[in-house]
Amino acid sequence: MNYPEAKEKKSTSKIVHELDSLFKPKSIAIIGASSKELSIGNVILKNLVHFGYTGKIYPINPKEPEVRGIKAYPTIFDVPDNIDLAHVIIPSKFVPQIIEDCGKKGIKSVIINSAGFSEMGEEGKALQKAFLAKAKEYGVRIFGPNCQGIINCDPEYNAYCDFTFTFPKPGSISIVALSGGVGAFIMQSLFDLEIGMRMYASNGNACDISISDVVNYYGEDEGTKAIILYTEGFHNPKEFLEVAKVVAKKKPILAMKAGRTEAGAQAAASHTGSLAGVDIATELIFEKAGILAFNNEEEMCQVAMAFSTQPIPKGNRVGIITNTGGPAVIATDELVSAGLVLPPLSDKAKNILKTTLLPEATIGNPIDVVATGGGTHFRSALDVLMNEETIDSIYINFVTAPFTDTDEVARQIVEVNKMKKKPIVCNFMTNLSMERYQVTTKIMKEGGVPCYAFPTTAAKALGALYKYHKVRSRNIGEAKVFKEVDKEKAKKIIQSGSSPSGRSGWVFLSSDKVYTLLSAYGIPVADWRLVDDVEKTVKAATEIGFPVVIKADAESLVHKSDLGGVAVNIKNADEVRAVVENMKRKFGPSSGSSPSGRSGGVADLKFFVQKFLPGGKELVAGVSAQRGLEPLVMFGLGGIYVEVLKDVVFKIAPVTELEAKEMLSSIKASKLLDGVRGEKGIHKESVIEIIQRLSQLVIDFPEIQEMDLNPIMAFVDKAFVVDARIKVQ
Amino acid sequence: MNYPEAKEKKSTSKIVHELDSLFKPKSIAIIGASSKELSIGNVILKNLVHFGYTGKIYPINPKEPEVRGIKAYPTIFDVPDNIDLAHVIIPSKFVPQIIEDCGKKGIKSVIINSAGFSEMGEEGKALQKAFLAKAKEYGVRIFGPNCQGIINCDPEYNAYCDFTFTFPKPGSISIVALSGGVGAFIMQSLFDLEIGMRMYASNGNACDISISDVVNYYGEDEGTKAIILYTEGFHNPKEFLEVAKVVAKKKPILAMKAGRTEAGAQAAASHTGSLAGVDIATELIFEKAGILAFNNEEEMCQVAMAFSTQPIPKGNRVGIITNTGGPAVIATDELVSAGLVLPPLSDKAKNILKTTLLPEATIGNPIDVVATGGGTHFRSALDVLMNEETIDSIYINFVTAPFTDTDEVARQIVEVNKMKKKPIVCNFMTNLSMERYQVTTKIMKEGGVPCYAFPTTAAKALGALYKYHKVRSRNIGEAKVFKEVDKEKAKKIIQSGSSPSGRSGWVFLSSDKVYTLLSAYGIPVADWRLVDDVEKTVKAATEIGFPVVIKADAESLVHKSDLGGVAVNIKNADEVRAVVENMKRKFGPSSGSSPSGRSGGVADLKFFVQKFLPGGKELVAGVSAQRGLEPLVMFGLGGIYVEVLKDVVFKIAPVTELEAKEMLSSIKASKLLDGVRGEKGIHKESVIEIIQRLSQLVIDFPEIQEMDLNPIMAFVDKAFVVDARIKVQ
Repeated sequence: MNYPEAKEKKSTSKIVHELDSLFKPKSIAIIGASSKELSIGNVILKNLVHFGYTGKIYPINPKEPEVRGIKAYPTIFDVPDNIDLAHVIIPSKFVPQIIEDCGKKGIKSVIINSAGFSEMGEEGKALQKAFLAKAKEYGVRIFGPNCQGIINCDPEYNAYCDFTFTFPKPGSISIVALSGGVGAFIMQSLFDLEIGMRMYASNGNACDISISDVVNYYGEDEGTKAIILYTEGFHNPKEFLEVAKVVAKKKPILAMKAGRTEAGAQAAASHTGSLAGVDIATELIFEKAGILAFNNEEEMCQVAMAFSTQPIPKGNRVGIITNTGGPAVIATDELVSAGLVLPPLSDKAKNILKTTLLPEATIGNPIDVVATGGGTHFRSALDVLMNEETIDSIYINFVTAPFTDTDEVARQIVEVNKMKKKPIVCNFMTNLSMERYQVTTKIMKEGGVPCYAFPTTAAKALGALYKYHKVRSRNIGEAKVFKEVDKEKAKKIIQSGSSPSGRSGWVFLSSDKVYTLLSAYGIPVADWRLVDDVEKTVKAATEIGFPVVIKADAESLVHKSDLGGVAVNIKNADEVRAVVENMKRKFGPSSGSSPSGRSGGVADLKFFVQKFLPGGKELVAGVSAQRGLEPLVMFGLGGIYVEVLKDVVFKIAPVTELEAKEMLSSIKASKLLDGVRGEKGIHKESVIEIIQRLSQLVIDFPEIQEMDLNPIMAFVDKAFVVDARIKVQ
Repeated sequence: MNYPEAKEKKSTSKIVHELDSLFKPKSIAIIGASSKELSIGNVILKNLVHFGYTGKIYPINPKEPEVRGIKAYPTIFDVPDNIDLAHVIIPSKFVPQIIEDCGKKGIKSVIINSAGFSEMGEEGKALQKAFLAKAKEYGVRIFGPNCQGIINCDPEYNAYCDFTFTFPKPGSISIVALSGGVGAFIMQSLFDLEIGMRMYASNGNACDISISDVVNYYGEDEGTKAIILYTEGFHNPKEFLEVAKVVAKKKPILAMKAGRTEAGAQAAASHTGSLAGVDIATELIFEKAGILAFNNEEEMCQVAMAFSTQPIPKGNRVGIITNTGGPAVIATDELVSAGLVLPPLSDKAKNILKTTLLPEATIGNPIDVVATGGGTHFRSALDVLMNEETIDSIYINFVTAPFTDTDEVARQIVEVNKMKKKPIVCNFMTNLSMERYQVTTKIMKEGGVPCYAFPTTAAKALGALYKYHKVRSRNIGEAKVFKEVDKEKAKKIIQSGSSPSGRSGWVFLSSDKVYTLLSAYGIPVADWRLVDDVEKTVKAATEIGFPVVIKADAESLVHKSDLGGVAVNIKNADEVRAVVENMKRKFGPSSGSSPSGRSGGVADLKFFVQKFLPGGKELVAGVSAQRGLEPLVMFGLGGIYVEVLKDVVFKIAPVTELEAKEMLSSIKASKLLDGVRGEKGIHKESVIEIIQRLSQLVIDFPEIQEMDLNPIMAFVDKAFVVDARIKVQ
């Protein structure tokens, strides 16, 4: 399979990007440069110099002729050259004016490190609004405010526009983090792991340049091989999803969203006020975009090490080489848990190893070259696995046993690793306080072999490489658009529903509207009539055919079933009459009180008659609108499965056919859909189509706030909605 | 609450233990000491000297007058003094003789490093048997063979009786590992984390001194604060459970069992042949013993760091101090996931912090002292949390911000940490390549503060401390012994069942025996009769009361239901007659063939009549015998819950009342037992009693191989077994 990254490499490499002025500045002004040690205006200047920034630096300070030995200018207008990027480190109240100045000077990007804006109440918000207006007027892009900044480790730039204290080596991993604190320790972790970094961005309040913009930029950056993302929410989840979808096909995005527990979300709200309450279905966004999600940032960083050097495997088949027994057992457990398999070796492979390995070696998968095995033994095992057609990746346990030339083993591993034919990860067990093994370690690390200190950790890294292969290969396709739907009719119903009768801006549609709407979108419903007296009900029931369900119907009757407004399995005309008379007594205009709490009964009481369909499997589907994102579509088994076991699955609309199929297969009780204990299975195709039509309906009508098809009765040959509730705005 | 460790400390400290000769040897002979560099007989000698062993070393070598400059002796009999411990590093065929010699010399413990025994086929097994016989004759305890050895870091001994290459500092964590490879990297990991180690043991084939013996020894060792255990199975799981139960009440055991996947177990079998097939319910053993189980050895080592210095919290209430926002969000997520809660601060606490912290600090839980917060701010927050009655433990995020005196912050944390009042863990985010922060780090580490580089990792460590509090506080009690059971009757039935009619040594009991046996142990069953003709069946049904169930019964009819041998809901005498005649035609002596495959029908065909009890909740309980362990008892909801959702739970017998209650509450669908959707709940007490009686029955009769009570029908006021299957040996 050919992946886009390989094909597009050349074509995108030289395109000039709007954010180049931010990430690849040729000149930087520091507005608020200061001689005061440890002040931000001093540290940023120091960092730029220390990191060997290749462009020009213009400290701006009205009082000092130079800062840290570099000529300073009173204002940006005094700078004789063009300026690509400006840091702003001055009190917030002066920022709107400075942004206007930057615009006039022709500065394209500004990093506002200063705080005191949207995170600080109304006054700050007003200031942010003011400088944004100026920025828009002059076409200046804003990074921040209240942020760390960016770093570009490309030796062509060495741009350390940040006040943190880690100085990474150039590499291929780029980081974007909402929280500077988290971004900094991720960067530090890559440094400690001796993984190089490409670019870094922590954009604080993110009033203009968003995480999505940065991800998009990293996606187009040829030097970025993988992206690490940390956030506590998205300002514009829909935009992020669209961007991430495209980027994740090209390169892996490893992401972590914190605030996944209620207490965590509260803690997040307290330090990033603006995102409070915007808890959206981040997990689903990650899934739909093909992002590798993590709940553990240490694991995310460790995994990044493998992505920074190794190719993506073409499948799930792993070969293990080990020189010690136990760690191979641990690794096998973890690899298998991650969905990998250990195929047996071919006879050809075994025959080679029989002649090349030590007599006490174990020839199988794992291949145990034993602790006394040396470079030639490891090499032979590596060559064999590289040539095995049934092997996609290689896992190595290498303990630096005192009995062997460990440097030679390392050299052989490195040589094979350099071919980049199949990914290799290594659990490298050694004692770094011994000089002898420091040499071995150096060979391994400089040779680009991802080295871990624990078998489970190394196995998790290989598992993540494989997972990326899986998500990149998974093509969910485009959502089907059913042409024969009656959009006009649906529109009328929904608009009629959004009438002033609804409290707090929304209303539940009456049953006839619900079923007409579903039918307009081709969602099958049990045959029904809405009538308003006893004999019409009898007639309707006769037309539909007994048995029937009868429901008391009025817009004010939402919890019909709880109130005794539903009668099921009505078998003949006499039963119809009895039921309807009873409902009239209960809910009609002459009844003493109404369930809605208003005095007097329901004036518009009608009777909803519907075919009663027993014996099917009860399913549920539903929809809930999301702020800043397309609605979520839900599917599950009805009754206790949804109520007690919470056995439901969600996807973000639009739901494609593949996704709808996945919904059926990913509930825990999915086997019940195939039939068990002698029962027959259900007609899945019908349900898959209902989900897709439901998705189309809510995409077409964002007015729909909530929708429950509960239950859908599914049979061997068909599926019908038999009760539904729709809330529109 | 007072824990035994506090009370028993004095009493056990000076007891001389049989394994003292192994772990605290005053003199060591190295039989097979060698001048050849990198040979095991050389490395062990080198390690003993390098580690500063405080006792006497006697190299034994028939040819050399000295080895590595130490006087050598031709045989152990030439050594003028007593020898506590001997290493044996000679070819396996000489080992039985040497063990006899050791016995004669009065050596109490021997570490056999040599391989070539039970792991190497029949010849090796015979040699192992031979030296074990000698060991028993002379009272010599054997450690190994085919093993690394032991290490004792107590400065009184400095006994490095091992050929590995990590030299730990003395500390309080002791390690026991089946696999030397895994043991070595765990030891290395503690070293890298700068956690000291107390003792180490890796016992290879473990022919005499077992993992249980070592755990028992560590349990009694005053200097061991926590134990790390790695295994791929147990030779004697029952013994281990008994030992671990006692030790885990005194000190935490952190354990990992590899080979948890099928492929992992296969890999384990290939390197530790002797344990193949002995896959026992390790998870359940760990749970019953109160062991903290891990699937990730890196996490296990990281967690050990907290156990090595911190007290155990008295509850689940944590206070967070942070000087950066994002990491507090991540930590909160993980802490809450681990069952901890973040109580709000008291007004008193808030008032103090309002006067002591910086104005931009956030006063809540988390307390954000902000990045510019210094030592006094951290100290004030620490003091407040130490004094809050609603706080049991403290989590700290400490990033070494450049703007503050980080050494002073560290000193304040250390000072509070030294009080050991409440556990503290710290996510310490710094750049160790900067000299300034190396000092801060040194203060933190020497001050015994467990420092992690990631918030999730630190939070997991605190989560583990809390988990140990929970398991130690959980007292499952003793299993109830129901006195009124008829053990004699049960014995007769089981012995009659173990008749020669069973194939491969086991047999299914016939229905009458099954129900009589259950009744003998007070397990309620639906009223039943076993009869052998039509009219007797009618009479039985009438006595029991309609409706009834009728089952064709014979020992050869196991899968009655599949074959049409079961008729339910029989409402009157005529129906009884029709059913019984039909069964006679199908299975009786005159029928053409029998389901058991023998020609001719079932000669002993009888009819089992039982009260039909519809409308209850279907439950299942069962038992399966385990090699080397008491049987496992299973409980779950019947039907699709057990078949499709696998919603079952296991415990090791004997099951106590608390455990039986936990079984009911820990199935996923446990809410169904309370009643949902208008249904009433079941009589849980009856089911809890059935589980305990079942447990007593299988403990009393190890002949029971398998038992299924399926279903148990549970009602609002009672529960009855309505079908059961018992396999005895």
